[in-house]
Parts: sequence; C-alpha cells; structure tokens
Amino acid sequence: MEAPLSTWLIQSGTVVCMDRAGTIVSGDVLIERGVITAIGADATARAARLPAGEPAGVIDARGGWVLPGLVQGHLHLCQTLFRGRAEQGDLLRWLREAIWPFEAAHTPDSIAASARLGVLELLAGGVTCVNDMGTVHHGDAIAAALEQSGIRAVFGKALMDRGDGVPRGLSETADQALASALALADRWDGAGDGRIRVSLAPRFILSCSEPLWRGVRDASRARGMIVHTHLAESPGEALEVQAVVGDTAARYFATHELLSQRFVGAHGIWLDTEELGMLAQARAALVHCPGSNLKLGSGLANVRAWLDAGVRCGLGSDGAACNNRLDTFHELSLAAGVSRVTHAAAPLTAREALSLATLDGAAALGWDAAIGSLEPGKQADVIVLDARGAHVAPVDPADPYTAIVHAARATDVLLTMVAGRVLYRDGAWTTLDPELVVRDAEHQSQALQRRVERA
Amino acid sequence: MEAPLSTWLIQSGTVVCMDRAGTIVSGDVLIERGVITAIGADATARAARLPAGEPAGVIDARGGWVLPGLVQGHLHLCQTLFRGRAEQGDLLRWLREAIWPFEAAHTPDSIAASARLGVLELLAGGVTCVNDMGTVHHGDAIAAALEQSGIRAVFGKALMDRGDGVPRGLSETADQALASALALADRWDGAGDGRIRVSLAPRFILSCSEPLWRGVRDASRARGMIVHTHLAESPGEALEVQAVVGDTAARYFATHELLSQRFVGAHGIWLDTEELGMLAQARAALVHCPGSNLKLGSGLANVRAWLDAGVRCGLGSDGAACNNRLDTFHELSLAAGVSRVTHAAAPLTAREALSLATLDGAAALGWDAAIGSLEPGKQADVIVLDARGAHVAPVDPADPYTAIVHAARATDVLLTMVAGRVLYRDGAWTTLDPELVVRDAEHQSQALQRRVERA
Repeated sequence: MEAPLSTWLIQSGTVVCMDRAGTIVSGDVLIERGVITAIGADATARAARLPAGEPAGVIDARGGWVLPGLVQGHLHLCQTLFRGRAEQGDLLRWLREAIWPFEAAHTPDSIAASARLGVLELLAGGVTCVNDMGTVHHGDAIAAALEQSGIRAVFGKALMDRGDGVPRGLSETADQALASALALADRWDGAGDGRIRVSLAPRFILSCSEPLWRGVRDASRARGMIVHTHLAESPGEALEVQAVVGDTAARYFATHELLSQRFVGAHGIWLDTEELGMLAQARAALVHCPGSNLKLGSGLANVRAWLDAGVRCGLGSDGAACNNRLDTFHELSLAAGVSRVTHAAAPLTAREALSLATLDGAAALGWDAAIGSLEPGKQADVIVLDARGAHVAPVDPADPYTAIVHAARATDVLLTMVAGRVLYRDGAWTTLDPELVVRDAEHQSQALQRRVERA
Repeated sequence: MEAPLSTWLIQSGTVVCMDRAGTIVSGDVLIERGVITAIGADATARAARLPAGEPAGVIDARGGWVLPGLVQGHLHLCQTLFRGRAEQGDLLRWLREAIWPFEAAHTPDSIAASARLGVLELLAGGVTCVNDMGTVHHGDAIAAALEQSGIRAVFGKALMDRGDGVPRGLSETADQALASALALADRWDGAGDGRIRVSLAPRFILSCSEPLWRGVRDASRARGMIVHTHLAESPGEALEVQAVVGDTAARYFATHELLSQRFVGAHGIWLDTEELGMLAQARAALVHCPGSNLKLGSGLANVRAWLDAGVRCGLGSDGAACNNRLDTFHELSLAAGVSRVTHAAAPLTAREALSLATLDGAAALGWDAAIGSLEPGKQADVIVLDARGAHVAPVDPADPYTAIVHAARATDVLLTMVAGRVLYRDGAWTTLDPELVVRDAEHQSQALQRRVERA
C-alpha cells in the first residue's frame, strides 16, 4: 500500500490551539511527516522553504476553525450495534437485561462491524483518539479494526470474574482475564506506529473480585498500563457496591492501591468530596459522560467540583447503546449545560468544556505530551470545522469556544487527520467505506439479534 | 411569481404518522393542493387515478422516515443575531445585561435578518411551524420575514410596560402595547393563506402591570388570540414574582383569569402540583425548553408530572441567545434524557418526546385539527428524514421513535414542506438564499453590536 501523505500545509484557518495559553491564530499550520512543525507566520515561512515537492498537500481552511482532534475518554465500540436495542433506564437493569446478553452473543465479525460503525461516526465527527473498553472476548477483532481505521486508541478487553446476571459466555477466572488482557497487550500495544495502546479494563467493582483488582494493580504498575474502569455511576450501583465490598467505590480503589496517574474512571457522579480528594492526590482521572448519564438516568456530575478538587478530567460518549450518539459536540454542549445546573456559581466555561475533549482529555489518558493541542512537536491529530453555517452565525472571531461548544455540530467537520494522515475529508474516506460499514453493521446486527433470541 | 407545486406523491418511505393511534406505514403519502389526501396503499391507488399531469411532483423517500413537520412551541427569532453574545447564566441578569439592550438596539433590517437566519436553521432542521415571541418593536418586519419564508407561525410582539432594567427603547404603556399588538393582528392574522396567526405575547409577570394583564385577557377572549408568555423559569425570577405580585406565577394567572385553552406558557420548571392542576383544569399549555433551561442554569422540568397532571405540552428551543441551537433534535434528545433524571420511574418514551414536537406541540397551539400528524385531511406540513446514516444504524424498523429522538440529527432532514410547498430539499431552497441570509446576518450583527456599545 502506498504511504499516505503526511506533510501538509493547512492554510488560512482560524487556528484554535487549545494549548494552556489559549492561543488563537489566523493563519497556517505546517505538518511535516505527521508532526506539527509550525503555526501561524512561522508555518507560512517554513513551508516556503521546504524542499521541492513538499508540502505534499495543501488544505484550504478559509472560513474554518482548525482544532486539535477530539479525544473521547470513554467508549464501548462493541456496543455500537446495540444502538436503540437497550432502552432500559437503570444501569444495572440495562447491563443485565440487555448489554451483557448482547455482548455474550458477539462473534469476531459482529464485533468488528460494531467497532467500524462506531469509528465511522467518530472520525466523521472529528474524533482522532478514543479510550475504548471492549467486552470479554474478541479483543483482537476490535484492535484490528481500530488499527486499520487509522484512529488513535487506548483499548482494553473488559475484565469480569464475578457478579449477578453475567451470562456464561462472559465469565472468566481472574487468572484467565488477566492472562488474556496481557496477551492482547503483547500483540497490540504500540501497533500502528504507536497509535494503539492497550489498557487493563476491569469493568467495575461489581464485576471483579479482589484478586482480580490486585492483579490489575500489579500488572498496571509493572507494565505502565492504563486502568480503565467505571465508578460511582448510579445510586443503585453505589448501594450494591456498598453491600458487596462494604465501602464506596473510590475508597475501595484507594484501599486497594488502584488510584494512580494511570487510573481512568468513567462517570464518577456520586463521588463525595473526600473521594475526589483521593483521586486528585493520586493524579487519577475521571471521564465525564453527560449524555450517557442523562440517557440512563444516572444523574448529573458536578465537574466543577472535580476540577476544584484537582482531579484530571476527560469527556466521553460512552457506548451507542446508552447515549445513543457518538457525537462529541452533543457531549460538549451537555457538559457546559449540565454544569450550569450543578454549579451555577462557577459553571464550566466553553473553553473549559472544549478542553475536556482536547488537551485535558489527552492528559487524562497520559497522552498530552503527544496530542491534545496544536503545538509544534506534537502529532498532527488535526480537524477542520466549517464556521460558515447558518447555525453558528453570527460568528464572534474573539470567541470560537462558545460557537464550537454551543452551536457547532459533528456534521461541521470538514477534515479529520491522525498523525498527518487524512482519514476523512469533505465526505470522502481513506480507510473506511461508509456504505460497506453500514451495510455490514445492519447485517451483523440482525444476526446478533437472532443469536440473542436463541440464547 | 409562479405558483409552487402543491400536489405530490411521496413514495416508498417509512411513514411515521404521529397520530394518536401510532400508525407506521411503509409506503406512499399523497398530497393534493397542499392537503394530505391518502397514506399507504390508498395513496398509491389514488395517485394512479389522478388527472393527467398530476401528481405534479414525485418525491422518492426510500431509506427515509416521512414525518409531520416539527412544531417549535417557544422561540424568539429576534434573538438569533445575539447567538454567542449573551453567555450569562442567570435569567434575570441575562435579560437585563444582554437581551434587553440588544433588543432595544434592533432596527427593522436587523430584526428581519435575525428572523431569516433563525428560520433558515429551523426549516433545514425540519421545523414547519413556530410559536415566536418578538420584541416590543418591528413586529411587521418579523411577520413579513415569516410570511415570505413559507413557514407556518404564531407570532406576537412582546408586551412590556414595567420592570427593572428595561431600556427606554423597550418601554411602552399598557395601552400602547395592547393597541400595537392588536394593530399587528389586524395586518397579519391569517396572512399567507392562513399560515400566519398573531398572538398576544406579554413577556412575563415582571414585565407587565396588572392593567396590561387584564387587557391581554380581554383581548384574548374577544379575538380568540393565543396568550404566549413565560412562567416559573428560574428560582430568582420566582422570588421576584413573589415579591412584586405576592403570589406564584400560575396562581397569579389563575386569579387574573388568564389561564385558558389559549394560554401557552414557556418553561414552567418551578410550578408546584397545585399550579399544574390549575393549568390542566383550564386546558392551558406549557412548552418544555430543556436546552435553554440547561444553558441558563434554570433547572430541569419534570414533564412527566405535567402530563400526569393533564397539562398539554409542547417543545421549544427558545432563542438562539440562550441555547444556542435552534435544533429540535437537540431538544428531543434532551427532553427524553432530562426526564430520565427528573422522573426515573416513568420517564418520557421516545414516542412521547417526539409527540411534544409534533401532534402535542400542534395541540398546544390549538392547531392540531390542521397539523401535527400525517392524516388525510390535514395540511401537508411534511418532512423526510434520512434513515441511512451510520449514526442511526442499525435501524430497528419497529421503533423509528428511538432512532429519531436519540440518534437522528437536524442534518438528516432531506425535505421540508409546508402546506404542500417544498421549502427545502437536498440542500436547495425555494424561499431563502442561505448565503445571502448568513452574510446579511453577519453584517447586521456587527452594526447592532456597534449600536449597543454606543447606547
């Protein structure tokens, strides 16, 4: 296969860097061999001095915002095929009655179709990096789909060795679970020129025994792997956690030495102030999932309280089975809006919300040295958003954040690039065939439904 | 101008009628001279018997959902130009510091540009009917923009004769306010072949004196005009209302005999059970505005409690200054999601949410005999939604409601028709020039901003 272009001059856009300084530049971004090398006047000048034949490509971004690619901090791509088939509103009921039986019915082909369908929606919506939790089996099929799509990803198989209502097909021993997660890491960690990283993904406290949590802790320490889990998502879950382990979620994790800068916990709605302090002290991260939290009726997280406590935060759509969109713009708008209700005195600003899905989101995954903002030396994970639509007018040149968070849409994304490779541009695709992906998803969904009904 | 086509056969779609019976048909919809005359096999058969030359147009809806046009129950089109310029989070502060000064700075040209920009976004997003509250002046400019656009509308000028922080440019006496509202009705009620209706729109309790409310009551009774107002939106407003009139909003309206089947109140978040009973008994309607309620931090309305009390309900985006989207799909998703949190035991179903923006929304405006569902004899306010996108896959043929409410997007709208007249189809427009509308909005917005800064 021919090497894709990875040297580009993105010209004449409004460059919203999302760096800590809040830089906004009208002008160019230069990308050389997949890495951002200059922004603004520097980019224009340096591009003129490149050897003949480079930059290999020019992208006209006039009338657009140029942004770092969006980072999705919590997803279940294996659940994309269940969209609209799991409309129960309570977390534990939803897991036991719908999600687990569906996950148990997956085959490598159906899970790959599910992942590709989700990645198609994500890339078209400007997402360049995902943190995904799979199911117990078929991890290789998801990893291969992620690698082939060109997206950047942290991926782990779900670790589960106990719990009520778990179908036989999802049950493993702690040793089996850990061994297969580490084998997955051996095969995939660092794949795709470092785009793919493998995490440990213990599902949540109710799914994992104490020996499994200890094994996760040790493996994470030994191999530097992210621990991606759920915590404090719903009141019913909190009650069961208390009954089963005699403690609240973050206290349990603190006691078992699982909180570290490699810990990424989704939801966290029901954490108390002391627990937030424990997370902050350990440099652990939380991922806010406001769309999922509304759809499952889990509650409204107070992200200002997280930030005030010093917790690092990202933003995620969760799975398509409980959202039902994989649309970061939907989450951005909700993150800002929910914060107005949970913390009226100091709600998230639009820029803070956008940072959850860019630099802060990258930092939550320990990846902010390489991605999350547009800065020379960083990987060229870049998107271009159309700023000319009626739905964002009139545009305030001084405040792109408000327009992007509160008015822009996933369909405004004109271009999505990962490490200098264009994956989506003006409706055209380089790694995925959208018609084929949708057709395969429809076909695999029907077959999956039949397997669930027979089970 | 040539008469537009108004006889159409919409072929081979999934027709989601949104009638009380919940009819879903795979097949055709026949429209003759702007009126739906048959659905399903009847439509196909009747179309074959039409005189030569009819149906005048055929619309291929394969792979699409055919729905009644969406009804927006509460909007301020005069505020579209303020999008992103009024980011304060508290209702009263937002009105006094941003909205009223902006409204006072409008000219007929700027308000027409604002209305056209909003209508462009609404029509492209499948909205065929709006209930709009203007500002104090320039009502003719908005009415003309509505009439010319082809959309269906209830429209009223804002009535205000008192209150703190109101700029001089927005202050009228009760007599002036009523006289100009009735003169507007004389000029515009019934315009556009009955598409335009004029309402009385007293802003809210804090903006209107008791004589003005009495005048509104009498005029509404005498002329059958809708009374479109705001109530119980924010805790701060409720406190001021109590201080100023010594009662809660709905009790004040009940005491002053304003509650009737012509009463349409937006927000209603903080109404108590007894007040909901008063509204229900009077057959008054509430309009749920979940996006605005989140963005202003006003709170979360419990729409299940409204429905349980017997209150008629619609759905609205409110103005672009406090949302900042005029996107009914955003509101549908929020209405369903917020309900999961406010009333977990019996949240709104997807079909109930969609009904707020179709048949129930039409009923809230007293217009359900003519619009709000696809049924023979009703006006052909019809939209076609693309059901083939990756973001709605896999589609469940038995449950279009969940896909439409939780996954579909405004950009999935392929066609918007009002009374048999196609206003938008596949990116093409018949009554508006989108580039011109956006350019004019940008220009008028800048001039408006300068007038506000000088004031």
